[in-house]
Amino acid sequence: MRTGPPDGSETVAELGEFGLIRRLTEGKPQPATTLLGPGDDAAVIQASDGRVVASTDVLVEGVHFRLDWSTPEHVGRKAVAVNLADIAAMGAVPTAVLVGLACPASTAAALIDELVGGLWQEAARVRIGVVGGDVVSSENLVVSVTALGDLQGRDPVTRGGAMPGDILAVCGRLGWAAAGLAVLGRGFRSPVTVVAAHRTPEPPYAAGPQAALAGATAMIDVSDGLLADLRHIATASNVAIDVQTELVEVPQRLVDVSTALGADPRHWVLTGGEDHALAATFPDPHAVPEGWTTIGTVTRGNAVTVDGAKYEGPAGWQHWRA
Amino acid sequence: MRTGPPDGSETVAELGEFGLIRRLTEGKPQPATTLLGPGDDAAVIQASDGRVVASTDVLVEGVHFRLDWSTPEHVGRKAVAVNLADIAAMGAVPTAVLVGLACPASTAAALIDELVGGLWQEAARVRIGVVGGDVVSSENLVVSVTALGDLQGRDPVTRGGAMPGDILAVCGRLGWAAAGLAVLGRGFRSPVTVVAAHRTPEPPYAAGPQAALAGATAMIDVSDGLLADLRHIATASNVAIDVQTELVEVPQRLVDVSTALGADPRHWVLTGGEDHALAATFPDPHAVPEGWTTIGTVTRGNAVTVDGAKYEGPAGWQHWRA
Repeated sequence: MRTGPPDGSETVAELGEFGLIRRLTEGKPQPATTLLGPGDDAAVIQASDGRVVASTDVLVEGVHFRLDWSTPEHVGRKAVAVNLADIAAMGAVPTAVLVGLACPASTAAALIDELVGGLWQEAARVRIGVVGGDVVSSENLVVSVTALGDLQGRDPVTRGGAMPGDILAVCGRLGWAAAGLAVLGRGFRSPVTVVAAHRTPEPPYAAGPQAALAGATAMIDVSDGLLADLRHIATASNVAIDVQTELVEVPQRLVDVSTALGADPRHWVLTGGEDHALAATFPDPHAVPEGWTTIGTVTRGNAVTVDGAKYEGPAGWQHWRA
Repeated sequence: MRTGPPDGSETVAELGEFGLIRRLTEGKPQPATTLLGPGDDAAVIQASDGRVVASTDVLVEGVHFRLDWSTPEHVGRKAVAVNLADIAAMGAVPTAVLVGLACPASTAAALIDELVGGLWQEAARVRIGVVGGDVVSSENLVVSVTALGDLQGRDPVTRGGAMPGDILAVCGRLGWAAAGLAVLGRGFRSPVTVVAAHRTPEPPYAAGPQAALAGATAMIDVSDGLLADLRHIATASNVAIDVQTELVEVPQRLVDVSTALGADPRHWVLTGGEDHALAATFPDPHAVPEGWTTIGTVTRGNAVTVDGAKYEGPAGWQHWRA
């Protein structure tokens, strides 16, 4: 933990629980869908179609982020982003987030202010607010976020609806966060685009409802890596999924970084987590919406393959590895 | 932390994230209001009246509970109970909980199983389920719960609606958890009723919607202590609240325990937190529902008083203190 104030500046212990909770929520604009905002025993949020989508993800310092690699603002943005991506992956639009924050009593109040700023920044990207939360004392910094969402009358797009004959497509970045992590792990701080991708994902939130409207049969948030997450669709839908590498774009930026590090950029794209792209299956090629890239097919079976074969990890590039 | 397994038994590190998340949610019955249960990117819960009530509370080992004073099952029950009490305090009925669990990798899988058992037990008391969650590695045990609820078409009962002339009433236990904490602090394990009250509160969940139906003008969950929480109503409603001690029951059990410890049982009742009783204001004496006890009045002003005076803490009983 290097969360303590460098000098005699204010700590969270001095602010106290209520002071902290106020800093988390007070004086911030809430959208019209927040019917009753923070400050009472609970918040009340609009759920127009009679249902609410809900997901919780927890980030822990030293496990999911390092405060020497990310600023508190990055951490706040990431904590909200990973949850909003889950809402988008159901085909829903986010409506609110709640935040449970645990941190050492010696944490600088300024650090919490920055983290809270990050939470709100990411929430503002989808025009929602932090509607409630709790701030407590703990040995290490833990950020637990619950996101709520609205299906707008549509059926949720689960992992279980893919059918043989469907088309596989993705929207959003793949491999960027993994490249950023590799760069940081070598002690570098650039290129900034990949380092920034590790610090804060940029999930394509609007692409979730877009895919649902276009008739997506299954969808998932790519948090653990494309192939790992496609396995969840294959299992839940009882189908086989094949990724065709000729269709998978490997961005020039990743090629450049991988050359410098002696890594395989295609491996980052196929297995790198934490970019929170969306992967979805569609009933036919014409259903794949604009902004999505077709990368494979769905057939009978129960495996995830790359070019028809089991993926064995980095091949051609491996000999350049440090 | 004494969460590690005493012998070579299974740890959470060996189970892995997906194994743990499965243990949290798999094979458990979900109510009909859980439209899509755990196992996808997010859950979908019914929100029949087009709104959802939501609240998050975080419990941390060593801060909110000690594993030498409470079993993991108690901790699980308490983590859900404190959140359901917030939902009840809005006049809503709970519909679902989501759980974010952070624990050391060395934690015994059996401990998590017991804690999860406690989460489900408390959820079952109001016929809801754990619809989602996350389990991550952390230095200490942190349990973050988000509870959702349904107002069933009613207005939320906030802290801000009390009016001069209203009647103050409470439902549920006051002072029991404080007595239990005092007993445990002295190294005792009995009387079991007060120790149990500290380990797991028993909030009167049904009394929240009952009070809302009866026309309650303001309501709060008594988590920090009766007088401290009434101050929140006084501030939000801009009223004065007077508690009349002749109306406040001091249970014989608390008198017995206080005599043994040389403490003031009335002080426990007025200031003890963590029992999660409900305190509410009603427009007239006839509106106070069955099961609720009238204990004071609401007038013009902005203070919380006891028998018309500022509460100064334990008086008559103080000289018996150890």
